[in-house]
Amino acid sequence: MKEIGLIGLGAMGRNLAYNFLSHGIKVVGYNRTTTLTEEINSEERNGFHGAVTLEELVQHLPKPRQIFLMVTAGETIDKVLSELCPLLDEGDIILDGGNSFFEDTNRRVVQLAQQGIVYYGVGLSGGTKGARIGPSLMPGGDKEKYHEVQDILEIVAAKYHGEACCSYIGPEGSGHYVKMVHNGIEYADMQLIVESYLLLKTIGKFNNQQISEIFDNWNQGKSKSYLLEITVKILREKEENMGLYLIDLIQDKASHKGTGKWTAIESMKQEENAAMISGAYLARLVSNDKRRLLFTESLPSPKGRNVDPIIFTEELKKAYYLGKVMAYAQGFDLMKSASEKFSWNLNLANIASIFRAGCIIQSEILEEIRKSYQQGEELKTLIEYPLFIKEVQARIQSLRVVVSLGIQYGLPLPLFTSAQTSLDQLRSPQVGANLIQAQRDFFGAHQFRRIDQEGDIHYEWEKED
Amino acid sequence: MKEIGLIGLGAMGRNLAYNFLSHGIKVVGYNRTTTLTEEINSEERNGFHGAVTLEELVQHLPKPRQIFLMVTAGETIDKVLSELCPLLDEGDIILDGGNSFFEDTNRRVVQLAQQGIVYYGVGLSGGTKGARIGPSLMPGGDKEKYHEVQDILEIVAAKYHGEACCSYIGPEGSGHYVKMVHNGIEYADMQLIVESYLLLKTIGKFNNQQISEIFDNWNQGKSKSYLLEITVKILREKEENMGLYLIDLIQDKASHKGTGKWTAIESMKQEENAAMISGAYLARLVSNDKRRLLFTESLPSPKGRNVDPIIFTEELKKAYYLGKVMAYAQGFDLMKSASEKFSWNLNLANIASIFRAGCIIQSEILEEIRKSYQQGEELKTLIEYPLFIKEVQARIQSLRVVVSLGIQYGLPLPLFTSAQTSLDQLRSPQVGANLIQAQRDFFGAHQFRRIDQEGDIHYEWEKED
Repeated sequence: MKEIGLIGLGAMGRNLAYNFLSHGIKVVGYNRTTTLTEEINSEERNGFHGAVTLEELVQHLPKPRQIFLMVTAGETIDKVLSELCPLLDEGDIILDGGNSFFEDTNRRVVQLAQQGIVYYGVGLSGGTKGARIGPSLMPGGDKEKYHEVQDILEIVAAKYHGEACCSYIGPEGSGHYVKMVHNGIEYADMQLIVESYLLLKTIGKFNNQQISEIFDNWNQGKSKSYLLEITVKILREKEENMGLYLIDLIQDKASHKGTGKWTAIESMKQEENAAMISGAYLARLVSNDKRRLLFTESLPSPKGRNVDPIIFTEELKKAYYLGKVMAYAQGFDLMKSASEKFSWNLNLANIASIFRAGCIIQSEILEEIRKSYQQGEELKTLIEYPLFIKEVQARIQSLRVVVSLGIQYGLPLPLFTSAQTSLDQLRSPQVGANLIQAQRDFFGAHQFRRIDQEGDIHYEWEKED
Repeated sequence: MKEIGLIGLGAMGRNLAYNFLSHGIKVVGYNRTTTLTEEINSEERNGFHGAVTLEELVQHLPKPRQIFLMVTAGETIDKVLSELCPLLDEGDIILDGGNSFFEDTNRRVVQLAQQGIVYYGVGLSGGTKGARIGPSLMPGGDKEKYHEVQDILEIVAAKYHGEACCSYIGPEGSGHYVKMVHNGIEYADMQLIVESYLLLKTIGKFNNQQISEIFDNWNQGKSKSYLLEITVKILREKEENMGLYLIDLIQDKASHKGTGKWTAIESMKQEENAAMISGAYLARLVSNDKRRLLFTESLPSPKGRNVDPIIFTEELKKAYYLGKVMAYAQGFDLMKSASEKFSWNLNLANIASIFRAGCIIQSEILEEIRKSYQQGEELKTLIEYPLFIKEVQARIQSLRVVVSLGIQYGLPLPLFTSAQTSLDQLRSPQVGANLIQAQRDFFGAHQFRRIDQEGDIHYEWEKED
């Protein structure tokens, strides 16, 4: 019978422990605060042993040991490792299931390898429920040793029509990198749903129940996703004693835990346009900004022109799906660029596969993405694949109509506008960068290139003066 | 007679040397490749001594020495410092006039102070011409010693109605930080001009000469700036033998040297919304993107509705100025946030003052900014000041009209859309973050806050299941 160590028994760790136990895998659990350990102990579950110290945890495990870390990313992990590693033997395996920054994982993989310890950064998505019934797992690290943990990871992972949502990602921190981008896409899709909700409320004049039904309709088709599904449920939730919708009682201020911020910054560092992910991150910041609502009275909302709500909803349905295509394209293009930059040899088809169930961004579109990459991964962007370019063609005009109308209503639509901008930047015959080249040469002698001559040219702009 | 050392005699360094010489300040110049030094030597200018080695440069200077570095930012500077510093004495002063990353300057200030050497990071803007006739200077570093270099810096700096465009910025790398943000604003204003050019060309159907005249008209009013002025000249430039405008012969691909990228990344790290600066950086990337023009045939430009070009130009004039207000607001708000984060005690009124002449972003708006901050710097954002909120009120509708129309023409307008989004995010009664809170609580038990109750709340969303 297999046995695994699990350090960190908070909401995620505890649910992952139950997941292992439900598959007949014994768990030796440890938590710094022992009350959590005692709580699970008191449930008297078959196969769970609560260890009071790390020494006890290590002694209870058969060699080579396999130990999952489910502790807060950052310094806490280094602290745990500094206490844990001296107790371990060569060949033992540590799996970090937290949202560690991929560069930290790069570093830890190398450091621990020097002590003969194998370290996997395991991207894990699915929230508390996913941890319990099956998350998406994105393990990255040493390829040679992966077979030692493959079984146990695939057992607890989500299943998509029987296929485990777990696949070896690549070396170093690539698993955590992919998880980071997963979260960036998650931020973007959440924000697209938010903007759709604002548009339906403000322009369509629908109430929460109606918006819930509209999203439910979208969720029957191409846009089907876990995020839409939960939004359908959220919007119809009522505070019974008050006769109000719960959504209207929640503050209009969102928080974040850093993975969207990382994705935004990494995309900028990699010189890759993931404007929709940055935009979604900034939208969360702005919702909490100290300057918000300063101008609500001095700059009142404009009155937009009335439109047929049914026709508008049809346009929006198309625009939302196109926005989603663009958000996923920016995320997958970013992974492709990272794969080249860091020589990770990522398999994008596999990554799309393991996102199909378990994780927060699970949705129909991922099967289309998998099918596309299955044909070969050499095309320059996801939207170049036939399955997607035809969706873009069929929807780009709806996106423009929706964005243009929303702006007339004074709605802030950072993601819809960004989807339109990103698309039109790629297809537009001219973006005006010729003028930037000329300006830079004028003030800084930075030179420019001509369409009809070779080489870098400096022009004497002020020769007449 | 004052005397200064100058290491690095490329385009910028050489022009700065001429600037010093023209003010009667002797220059001992050094360049790794001696041909540049010999070239200036051969001009037999009064007061210039070309040194062949760093030792010679150091020996020629009176103590305490003052040495300007005009070499490429990055490793080159550390290399020069490692050769130069062993030759110096306690109390000698080094001024780094390059575009160094502010964290590098933070580090160097501390490291060199340990050797008794005073290090200033001097933001310097104005291009080659500014270096020659007077740049804006943003010196940051030790406040106590600043009086030793103040005179010489103020002498070579640009003058705005007789006032030197040079002011002590703050400790550590704050001078380079301010220069970085200056460049971020520069990227944004250049991109706003580019988008205005695309709008005038595509929707107004104007030719280059007409666009030049329109910009010339704008340059007589509130929008007056160096960047508009050079754009007026660029657009009317003709390739005489071909009968074509030069602008139409330049490739539609812009480069960058990193300061816009830094500003974008820093704003994200600081959790400050500078979406217009990031957008301008991304626009340069996209112009060079390997995916550009992939879809020009499969996604043709839509036909927008015809509008009166005169009325449209009036709307655009207003929208451009508002875009400019928002870009400067994001830049100055970013500096304000950095000042608080790093305890730099930046004087924003002084910073606006020294941008009024010499630098690339010199423009009328800076005098309005200075006047606003002169009243006190405690307001939460630049657009909260009376001089600006009234400009926003008078122009926000024009901005919406222009953006909405541009999108219908399929134009990529990252900065105009971003200005509209940022403004509407601040003033809109609802941005939809309540839905994000609900989603995060649903899938991750992240809790939310209510408008009618205290504390963080978790809701059992799936209790009925």
